[in-house]
Amino acid sequence: MTYCLAVKVNKGIVFASDSRTNAGVDNVATYSKMSRFVFADNRVLVLLTSGSLATSQAVVNGIKKDLADPEAQFDISKGTDLHEVARYIGALSQQEQTRHSEAMTRSKSSNESSFILGGQIKGQASEIFLIYPQGNFITASAETPYLQIGEHKYGKPILDRLITQSTSLEDAARCAIVSVDSTIRSNLSVGPPIELAILTENAISEPYHSVLGQNSMLYKSVQKQWNEGLKRAFKRLPRFEWEQ
Amino acid sequence: MTYCLAVKVNKGIVFASDSRTNAGVDNVATYSKMSRFVFADNRVLVLLTSGSLATSQAVVNGIKKDLADPEAQFDISKGTDLHEVARYIGALSQQEQTRHSEAMTRSKSSNESSFILGGQIKGQASEIFLIYPQGNFITASAETPYLQIGEHKYGKPILDRLITQSTSLEDAARCAIVSVDSTIRSNLSVGPPIELAILTENAISEPYHSVLGQNSMLYKSVQKQWNEGLKRAFKRLPRFEWEQ
Repeated sequence: MTYCLAVKVNKGIVFASDSRTNAGVDNVATYSKMSRFVFADNRVLVLLTSGSLATSQAVVNGIKKDLADPEAQFDISKGTDLHEVARYIGALSQQEQTRHSEAMTRSKSSNESSFILGGQIKGQASEIFLIYPQGNFITASAETPYLQIGEHKYGKPILDRLITQSTSLEDAARCAIVSVDSTIRSNLSVGPPIELAILTENAISEPYHSVLGQNSMLYKSVQKQWNEGLKRAFKRLPRFEWEQ
Repeated sequence: MTYCLAVKVNKGIVFASDSRTNAGVDNVATYSKMSRFVFADNRVLVLLTSGSLATSQAVVNGIKKDLADPEAQFDISKGTDLHEVARYIGALSQQEQTRHSEAMTRSKSSNESSFILGGQIKGQASEIFLIYPQGNFITASAETPYLQIGEHKYGKPILDRLITQSTSLEDAARCAIVSVDSTIRSNLSVGPPIELAILTENAISEPYHSVLGQNSMLYKSVQKQWNEGLKRAFKRLPRFEWEQ
């Protein structure tokens, strides 16, 4: 499995992803699930992937091929809004899945993938989309300003408790790290490093990007502080009547 | 869905369950998922249920019928250890599921149920078991001293971070409340009141029992303190280099 999320706050977007892939417990590897695309002074895009690694890689490869092909019908540097880019990625994913659908049915396995696309086109507001394996997609809402793919349940409570649209980019990034770290601790199929990207609203430029390995000072410090903070919070919980 | 858990620490066992049942989003109700059985000076048992409400209720009913029937082959007051009681409950569950299996197959629906059984027989150590829909069962381990049924993912990180065998009963109970509350906040199919039972090791007597409704002082106070504590913990997380 995988765990990726994007948080859309007023000041921009935070993206985070784990790096573990597995085809059974005896076939575990480390892959980046985050792709960044910057078209200077026009648009910046980040894509997170979850599900079949073959489909995810084929989609990212398809995006790059179309970008390099001057005769391609569409590529992600085109499209007047991010909806068009999301629709294109959904179509690439469907096309790749359909190519192998008979073989997948025969082997009773799945090559479905889900994607989170986020970014900003100059002059428009930044947006995030969750693209389903079927190619259709949704965006986030003001009340629930985040999207998740993969093993989303472990890391959801902390987002529900802390994230609003007015959260700062840095706080959203810290919360995303805690959300992924909680998932890593509770589910073997999600693993480090944690990849982090921060896209500042209206800065149509290379996003901040960081890969937090297990020995990263920031990651170790977040883990330590969060554990200690939780223990302090826990100690302050109310006592039962017989404890007083 | 449902969320129930049992935490087995050195000092005894904590049980917690939510109270929401649903057959589709337009058929939501409140039911207790916790049954307590005390056989004075001999044994005390707590049973938590998840899955098909029909199967769960039939199993609890079967337990009570056998207890009332002097000619029953077995009942939960018998059995030389808790394994025998767990095996009996697994068999009742299988028997009930099999009775409706043809109809279930026709309607493509499931009547599976899972159970957590915990308790203590005088002179033996207390134990907890997770009884699968198939009737077989597992116990907890020293390293993972808790068992969960139903929507278990949302509430798992807090258990993984805080619970060890040497945790006090009261801390385990507070942690269980936070674990259920986090699940309630993040998943509509899990709802209050939270039912709580605490069984003190070697006290073969009525366990402490409490039903924490949304207006319960303890529940409200745990929610408030935990939210504030998390926010404090969050504020102490390390800054990015550009924030310093």
